[in-house]
Amino acid sequence: MPERNLIKDFYPDFSCDKLKEECGVFGVYRQEGAASLTYLGLHALQHRGQEGAGIASADGKTLFCRKGKGLLTEAISHEDMASLPGIHSIGHVRYATAGGNEAENLQPIVARASFGSLAVAHNGQIVNASELRTALEHQGHLFLGSSDSEIILHLIQKQDGPLVQKIQQACSQLRGAFAFLFLTEKSLYGVRDRNGLRPLCLGKKGDGWVLSSETCALDSVGATFVRDVLPGEIVKISSHGLETFWYTEPGERRTCAMEYIYFARADSTMDGRSIYQMRKETGRLLARADAGKVEADLVAGVPDSSLPAAMGYAEASGLPYELALIKNPYVGRTFIEPTQEQRDLGVRRKLAVNRSVIQGKRLILLDDSVVRGTTSKRIIHLLKDLGAREVHLRIASPEILFPCFYGIDTPTREELIAAQMDMDALCRYLGADSLRFLHVEDLVQAYGSDSLCFACFQGQYPAGTS
Amino acid sequence: MPERNLIKDFYPDFSCDKLKEECGVFGVYRQEGAASLTYLGLHALQHRGQEGAGIASADGKTLFCRKGKGLLTEAISHEDMASLPGIHSIGHVRYATAGGNEAENLQPIVARASFGSLAVAHNGQIVNASELRTALEHQGHLFLGSSDSEIILHLIQKQDGPLVQKIQQACSQLRGAFAFLFLTEKSLYGVRDRNGLRPLCLGKKGDGWVLSSETCALDSVGATFVRDVLPGEIVKISSHGLETFWYTEPGERRTCAMEYIYFARADSTMDGRSIYQMRKETGRLLARADAGKVEADLVAGVPDSSLPAAMGYAEASGLPYELALIKNPYVGRTFIEPTQEQRDLGVRRKLAVNRSVIQGKRLILLDDSVVRGTTSKRIIHLLKDLGAREVHLRIASPEILFPCFYGIDTPTREELIAAQMDMDALCRYLGADSLRFLHVEDLVQAYGSDSLCFACFQGQYPAGTS
Amino acid sequence: MPERNLIKDFYPDFSCDKLKEECGVFGVYRQEGAASLTYLGLHALQHRGQEGAGIASADGKTLFCRKGKGLLTEAISHEDMASLPGIHSIGHVRYATAGGNEAENLQPIVARASFGSLAVAHNGQIVNASELRTALEHQGHLFLGSSDSEIILHLIQKQDGPLVQKIQQACSQLRGAFAFLFLTEKSLYGVRDRNGLRPLCLGKKGDGWVLSSETCALDSVGATFVRDVLPGEIVKISSHGLETFWYTEPGERRTCAMEYIYFARADSTMDGRSIYQMRKETGRLLARADAGKVEADLVAGVPDSSLPAAMGYAEASGLPYELALIKNPYVGRTFIEPTQEQRDLGVRRKLAVNRSVIQGKRLILLDDSVVRGTTSKRIIHLLKDLGAREVHLRIASPEILFPCFYGIDTPTREELIAAQMDMDALCRYLGADSLRFLHVEDLVQAYGSDSLCFACFQGQYPAGTS
Amino acid sequence: MPERNLIKDFYPDFSCDKLKEECGVFGVYRQEGAASLTYLGLHALQHRGQEGAGIASADGKTLFCRKGKGLLTEAISHEDMASLPGIHSIGHVRYATAGGNEAENLQPIVARASFGSLAVAHNGQIVNASELRTALEHQGHLFLGSSDSEIILHLIQKQDGPLVQKIQQACSQLRGAFAFLFLTEKSLYGVRDRNGLRPLCLGKKGDGWVLSSETCALDSVGATFVRDVLPGEIVKISSHGLETFWYTEPGERRTCAMEYIYFARADSTMDGRSIYQMRKETGRLLARADAGKVEADLVAGVPDSSLPAAMGYAEASGLPYELALIKNPYVGRTFIEPTQEQRDLGVRRKLAVNRSVIQGKRLILLDDSVVRGTTSKRIIHLLKDLGAREVHLRIASPEILFPCFYGIDTPTREELIAAQMDMDALCRYLGADSLRFLHVEDLVQAYGSDSLCFACFQGQYPAGTS
Repeated sequence: MPERNLIKDFYPDFSCDKLKEECGVFGVYRQEGAASLTYLGLHALQHRGQEGAGIASADGKTLFCRKGKGLLTEAISHEDMASLPGIHSIGHVRYATAGGNEAENLQPIVARASFGSLAVAHNGQIVNASELRTALEHQGHLFLGSSDSEIILHLIQKQDGPLVQKIQQACSQLRGAFAFLFLTEKSLYGVRDRNGLRPLCLGKKGDGWVLSSETCALDSVGATFVRDVLPGEIVKISSHGLETFWYTEPGERRTCAMEYIYFARADSTMDGRSIYQMRKETGRLLARADAGKVEADLVAGVPDSSLPAAMGYAEASGLPYELALIKNPYVGRTFIEPTQEQRDLGVRRKLAVNRSVIQGKRLILLDDSVVRGTTSKRIIHLLKDLGAREVHLRIASPEILFPCFYGIDTPTREELIAAQMDMDALCRYLGADSLRFLHVEDLVQAYGSDSLCFACFQGQYPAGTS
Repeated sequence: MPERNLIKDFYPDFSCDKLKEECGVFGVYRQEGAASLTYLGLHALQHRGQEGAGIASADGKTLFCRKGKGLLTEAISHEDMASLPGIHSIGHVRYATAGGNEAENLQPIVARASFGSLAVAHNGQIVNASELRTALEHQGHLFLGSSDSEIILHLIQKQDGPLVQKIQQACSQLRGAFAFLFLTEKSLYGVRDRNGLRPLCLGKKGDGWVLSSETCALDSVGATFVRDVLPGEIVKISSHGLETFWYTEPGERRTCAMEYIYFARADSTMDGRSIYQMRKETGRLLARADAGKVEADLVAGVPDSSLPAAMGYAEASGLPYELALIKNPYVGRTFIEPTQEQRDLGVRRKLAVNRSVIQGKRLILLDDSVVRGTTSKRIIHLLKDLGAREVHLRIASPEILFPCFYGIDTPTREELIAAQMDMDALCRYLGADSLRFLHVEDLVQAYGSDSLCFACFQGQYPAGTS
Repeated sequence: MPERNLIKDFYPDFSCDKLKEECGVFGVYRQEGAASLTYLGLHALQHRGQEGAGIASADGKTLFCRKGKGLLTEAISHEDMASLPGIHSIGHVRYATAGGNEAENLQPIVARASFGSLAVAHNGQIVNASELRTALEHQGHLFLGSSDSEIILHLIQKQDGPLVQKIQQACSQLRGAFAFLFLTEKSLYGVRDRNGLRPLCLGKKGDGWVLSSETCALDSVGATFVRDVLPGEIVKISSHGLETFWYTEPGERRTCAMEYIYFARADSTMDGRSIYQMRKETGRLLARADAGKVEADLVAGVPDSSLPAAMGYAEASGLPYELALIKNPYVGRTFIEPTQEQRDLGVRRKLAVNRSVIQGKRLILLDDSVVRGTTSKRIIHLLKDLGAREVHLRIASPEILFPCFYGIDTPTREELIAAQMDMDALCRYLGADSLRFLHVEDLVQAYGSDSLCFACFQGQYPAGTS
Repeated sequence: MPERNLIKDFYPDFSCDKLKEECGVFGVYRQEGAASLTYLGLHALQHRGQEGAGIASADGKTLFCRKGKGLLTEAISHEDMASLPGIHSIGHVRYATAGGNEAENLQPIVARASFGSLAVAHNGQIVNASELRTALEHQGHLFLGSSDSEIILHLIQKQDGPLVQKIQQACSQLRGAFAFLFLTEKSLYGVRDRNGLRPLCLGKKGDGWVLSSETCALDSVGATFVRDVLPGEIVKISSHGLETFWYTEPGERRTCAMEYIYFARADSTMDGRSIYQMRKETGRLLARADAGKVEADLVAGVPDSSLPAAMGYAEASGLPYELALIKNPYVGRTFIEPTQEQRDLGVRRKLAVNRSVIQGKRLILLDDSVVRGTTSKRIIHLLKDLGAREVHLRIASPEILFPCFYGIDTPTREELIAAQMDMDALCRYLGADSLRFLHVEDLVQAYGSDSLCFACFQGQYPAGTS
C-alpha cells in the first residue's frame, strides 16, 4: 500500500494551480546556437516546471553547464548563455518538491568521469531509487544530492563497454517513470521508461535533431515532429546519425493519464493523440452522461487547461460555450504584505469572473481534476458570490484517490479530498449544485485505448511503488 | 491633417502585440492597507501598461509616493510598499512612448505646494498640451518632465478657491482625452474628459470608495461597481462623503472604440456595455456579412482579445469554434542573443499553432485590428506553414486609417497599412485567402449607439487635434 | 536660535559612520564618452553620498538624464549608460536626509523649459529655501519635489536675458551654501556660494573641462587641476571657451571646516590646502598640547579619516604610530537577521582591533569628531575589552555644539553629546582615560587662516540660518 | 619540474590585485543562530575569496546548504539564511580559478550518504588529486564536479569505522595543502594538512566552538582564540566536547609564506605570529639592507597589505612614513563601457595618488610582491606622472620564481616576471629608480624560524607537486 508522502503546499493563498509535474526536458543535436535553441525550447516547456532551470552544452570537446533557481528567465542570465558554446545541448525545467530546493538538486547534473563528461536531465521518478542508492552506497558510491537523477549517472559509471551499452545496463535496473536526456561532449541520448509513463518525442531540424518532453517545443524551435521515443527505447544521436537501441523488452505502454488531462500544453501531441482533441472528447463524454439530467444555461471552463473540455461539453450538449472565467496573464511574485481581507481575495488575483455571462445563470463548469478541492471550492464560491445562480461542476478526469509514484507531486490519501468523502458530501463541501467526474471507461474511450496509467485513480501501479 | 508622430517600434521581433494604451489608473479612499489594495488593483490593470508603475498614498497628514520602471512587480519593491502608509491611495501603470523612458515621466506625479501635496495619475492625452505649456512657461512656470500630465498640476496651482474649484477651472482649459485621479493628504478626486474618451468607473468597498480605469480591477479588490464617472464630471471623495461636480457642460459622449475592441479586459464593463458581449457581437455581425460568401471548416481567434469575436462568429455562422492558436503564458524578457534563424522564430515564442485542428482545414481567423500588419502576416504564414489550407482573415474593427491623438500610440499614416493599400492588395500582402473588416455601422450596431470615438477610422476628432 | 532638525539615525547598529555630507557633483565639457567619464568621476566622489546617483548628458541638441537609488553601481545600469550620449555631462551622488528618499528628489533635476532643457546638480543647503519657495508659490510656481535644489531652476526660469544673466540673478537671491553645476544642451556652468562654504574646483582635460566637488575626482579621470571656483563666481564653459562671471560681490571666504576634518578624501586639495597635510597638522597640534601631560605607548587613529591626524600626533610626540584598528573593506547590506548578541557585535563587522599592538598598551586614539558619541564609546569599549590598558581619546576637531544649516546632516543640540555634558562627564561617558578636543585656534593655525566656517563649533552662521 | 598552469587573468585593466588565495573557511559548533554567525565570520574572511560563498547548517537531525556566486552578500539571500536553521554551521568563501565558475564547484559540498550527510569546506589544493580521482574512478566512483574537494568525500565514504576514523584514513591519502571543515548533522571537524601549509585556528565562544582560516574572524564574532589546529591534527567537536586525533605523524611545519606576506588580514595571528608585526619587521629588514645606500625623502606603501612593511621601513630608516597612495573603498563592478582612454585610467579607479606628499620627492615605495609586474609598473608610472622625483621600489617578499601547487593561483614561469629577467632589467621594466627584494634569510629572520613554505621562491615543494 502506498505510504509515500510528497508534501508540497501547492495551494498557496494566491494560487489556483493544481498538480505539478516534476519537469520538462529538451535537447538539440548539431545546431548552431544550440544553447539558445534549448532556451527557446525550454520556454515552450516552462509550464512543466517553474522552480529551477538549467542548460548544458557541448562543443565536441568540452561540456558546459549553467543552472539556477526560478523561471528560465531568472535562472539563466545573459552571462550564463555566453558560457554555453557548442552545437549540442540539453536543458531542464524543474518543479521542486519539498526539501529539494537546494542548488545541488538542479539539473542537468554533470558527471566529470574519466571516460568524459556526461550530463543528465530527467523527468519522472524512479521507484526503486532508495534501494538502488543504498546498494550503490554499500559498494562505496557517494551521492552529492538527494535527487533520484544522480543514481542513473552512478549506474552508468559502473558498467562496462561503450556508453550506449552502459546506459542500457544502467536503465535496465531502474523501475518507475523516466524520460532521460544524456549529453556527452559529442553525442545526445534520449531514453524512455519501459511503460512510456513519461513522454519524450523526437524531431528533426535541418540536418540536426531535437528531443523534447512535448511536441509544442518542437514547433517553437521550428523543428519537425518525427515520432515519439518508444517505451524502452534508447535513441542515440552522434556522428553516426540516429541509432536506436533497447534497454529492455518494451513493457505495456502506460502513458500518464494526467499528461493528457492536465499537464501537457493543448497544442502538443503525445503518442499520436492531440491533447486538445482528447480534452474536447472528455467534455463530450461528460455531456452525454449528463444528457437530460441537468438543466443549465451555459458551459464554461477553468482556464487554461479545462477550456477544451468545456468546448467539447458545449458542442455535445448544444449549450452555449462562454468565457465565464478570465485569467490574469501577469503572474509572478508580489511584494505586498496583504491584510487578511486582501489575502482572502487571493484567487481573484489570478482568475476573474466575467460577470456579464454568469449573472443569474445556471453554469456547467468544467475543471480538469480535483486534488485537495481548495481551488474548486473558491472558484464556485466566487462565481456564486458574483451572481451565478447554479454551478454544476464537471471534472474531466476520474476521482484522484491514490498518490502517484511516477513524478507527480500528489498529496497523501488523507489530503486527497475525493478519497475522504463520498460524492454527495464532496459536492456539498465544494458548494456545487451537482458534481460529476469522468468515468475511467470514458477516459479509455476518449483516448481510444486503455494503454494509460490510471494509478492515481485505481491504485494499480504499472511500474510498481517504492 | 494630422502630422503628429508617436513613434514606437511596437512590433519587435518577439512580440505579437498590437496598439498600446497609454495607461491605467486606480485609486482607493478609506481602506486599511490602501497601497496594497492599489497594488492589487493595478495588477488587474497591468494589461494597460507594462513599462512603469507607481503608487502614492496618504495618511491624512502626509502624502507618499514610490514609482519605478517595468512591470508592477519590478517597479515597486517590498521596501517601497513599506514606505506607503495610509488609508487613501492612487496608482498608475504606464506604457512609455518614444523618448519618454526617463524617470521624471513616471506617475503619479506629486506637487508639493503651499496648499498641500497633490498627486496626479493620468490616462489619456491632452491635445492642447503644447499650447498650454507654452502659455504657462510665458507666465514663468517651469516644467521638470516632458509629460502632458504635469500641466494639469500647474493649471490647478494657478487657480483660486478650494481645490475642487481649482480642478474645475484647470480641467476646463484642457482639450483632449483624460481620466485623472488626484490624491491629497485627505481626499481623492476622479475626473473624466467631457467626451468620456477615456474610461473611469466608481466602486464601493465597505465604507470606502474605489476609482478605476476598468471594472475588472474593482472585482479583483472585492469592490462593487457603482457607476461610470460621467463625461465632464469631477467626483470628490472626502470626509464629507462622495460629492459630484462638473467642470464643463458634458460634451457628446465618445468613448474610445478601441477600448471595446482591443484594450479593455474582456471581463470589464464600460459605459454599461460588457466588453465581452460586445466583442462577441462584432463576431456575429462579421459572420452575417459573410453568410453564403465564404466556405470554411472552423473559426478561430488570435488570443486573447480576439477570442470572443471568434466565438460570436462561430455562433452566428454555425461553424465550429476551435483553439487554433495557443498563447505561451510565460512572457517577459529573455537573455539569449538568438541567431537570425532563431529570431525568425520570434512569433512562435508567444503563439503556438494547435496543429491538430488546422491540418488541411479552411479557417476563418478573427483578429481585432490591423495596424502595421506585421503580426497578422506572420500568423497567417505560420498557420499555412503548419498545415492550414485556407485562412480567411476577419478583422473585428474597421480599417485604422488615421492616427490617434487621445492617448493611443498609433504610427503615422505611412505606417498604417490599411491607409496604404486597397483591400485586395492588403489581402495579398497579408497572405490571406480573403479579408474583411467590420463596417463602422456594424460597430455602431454592436455597441447599440454611435456615441463612440471613431477618429482612427474616420479622421474626425471629437476633441480636436494637436 | 537654531531649531531645525535634520534627523537621521546615522549610527545604526552596524555602522561606525559619522556626519554625512549631502552630496558630490561632477561635470565634464567636451569629452568623448562624457557620461562614462562622469561615472568615473562620481566613483571617486562616492564617499560624499551613497544613497542615490544620477547623470545627465547632452549632445549639443538634446539633454538626457538617468538616476536611481543607492550606490552609483546600483543606481545607474548598463542600459542607463547607453541612454546617455553626448560630449557634455554632469552627475551627482547623494546622501538622503530623512523623508527624502523619494525618486523625485534624486538629482540631477531637469527642467524642460521653452528656452531649452536645464539640468542642475547641487551640493549644499539653501537657508532661505522655504521663504523663496513660498514666495514662488505665491507667484504661481509649482514644485514637484521637496528638495531645495528645484528652487534654483524656478528662480532661473523667472529671470530675463541670456542664461548666464538668469543664473546670476537667481543665485543672488539665495542665502546659504551651494555648489551648483548646470548643464544645457550645449554648455556647462559651475557656481559657488559667496562664502565658498561648499567646495568646487575646475580642471582641464585635453581641450575640454571638468568641474568637481573635490580634486581627487580630477585625478581619477586624468584631468589637471586648474583652480578652485571662487566664492560668488559663475564659471561658464561653452563654445566661447571658459568665461567667468560674478553673481555677487564675493563675501568672506568661509569653507566648511568639516570638509577638511572629515568629509573630503585625504588626497584632495581644497582652496589650496592639502586635506592630508592639514589633518596631519591637527594631530601635531594636539600632540603639542599634550606634551608632558599624558604617558602613552603608541598612537593610533580610527580609519580612514583619522589616520593622518594620528600620524601627525605620532610625529610630534615621538610615540610610535600603529594600526590598532583595521577596517573591513567589504561593506554593504547584509541579509542576516542577527540575534541580539550578534547585533551587539555590530561595530566589529566594520572595524577590527589589531590585538598584537594594543595588548597591555596605553593608546592615544585619534578620532576626527564626536557627534552623538555612540561610535567612539563602542570603539573604546572594544579596545579595552581586547586588551588595551588605557585609551586617551584625542579629537581632531573642536566640540560640535551647534547644528549645521549648510548641508551637513547634524542632529539637534539635544543629541549633540558635547553640548549636553562637560568634558569630564563626556570622558567618563565614552569610557576614555582622558579626552581632549582640538581648540578652534589650533584649527585656525593648522589651516593657516580663519577663513573657515566654524558654525557647528561656535554657533555663528556666516550665511545666516533658516 | 612544475608544468601545471593555473591560468587566471588577475590583472584586468581595472584591478590592482595580486595573487589570489583560493578560499576561506569558517565553522561554529553549538551557537544559537549558527548560520548568521558563520555569515559574520565569512564577512571577516571575504578578502580570501570574492567569487562564491556558501553556508551549511545542521540542527542535530538534518543538514542544510545554500550557496551562490559572487560576494557573500550576492551569493546568500535573506531567503537562503531563513533556510539554514540549527546551532552548527560551516561556510566557505571562494576564489574561482579558470574554468571553475560552474555552480557545481561552489562549496560547501554536501554528500548525502547512508551514514548521514556530510558537508565539506576546503581551503587549499591537493597535489595528488588527479591520481586519487583516477583511482577512485577505476573503483567505480563518480564525480559531479571538477573540484579537488569532492575527492575527500569519496575517500571518506570508502573507509570503515566511525567517522573520525574514516576522516583519518582518507586524509592520510592526500598530499598537498588543505584545511578542511566537515559538518555532519551533529558534529564539526577541522583538519589541517601535515605541513600546516594552509592555516586553521580554533576559538571558543560561550560553551560553543569556532574554527576559522584566520583569527580576524574569531574577533568579528566575539570568540576567543584558543590555539591553531596543528599540522596533521583532526579536531572533532561533538556532544563529547573537543577531542583531538591525528591522521598522520606531523610533518615539518611549513605554513605558506604568502599568508604572512599578502593574504591574511593584518589583524590576524597565525601560528603564534602577528601578521602585522611580521610585515613591519620585513620592512625594517629591508631598511637595514638599504642603510647608507639610497637617499630618499619619505616611505610609502601600496595599500592595504604593504602599509605595515612601509611603517617598519620608516621606523628603521628614520624617514617619514606618508600615505602616498589612497585606496578608493568603493569597489565592485561598473556598468560603463569605457573608451580606450578611460580604460587606461584603470588603476586610478582603485588607487589615488596623494599629490601633496610626493611632489618633487624621492620615495621608497613598499609593495608586498611582484607577480606579473603589471600593477607595480602602473603605480610607479602614475606616481612619476603626478610629480614623484624618484621611486625606489622595495618588495617585502623574495622574488616569486616558481608556481604554487598549494592553492594559490600563480601564473606559469613564463608569466612570472622575476623569473624572466635579471634585477636590472626588471627595475628598468618597472620604471623604478632602484629595486630590491627581501632575501629569503630575512624572511626567516622576520618570521623567527624557517618553518615556512618557500616553494614559490625556491622551487622546493614540501608536499610534492602534481
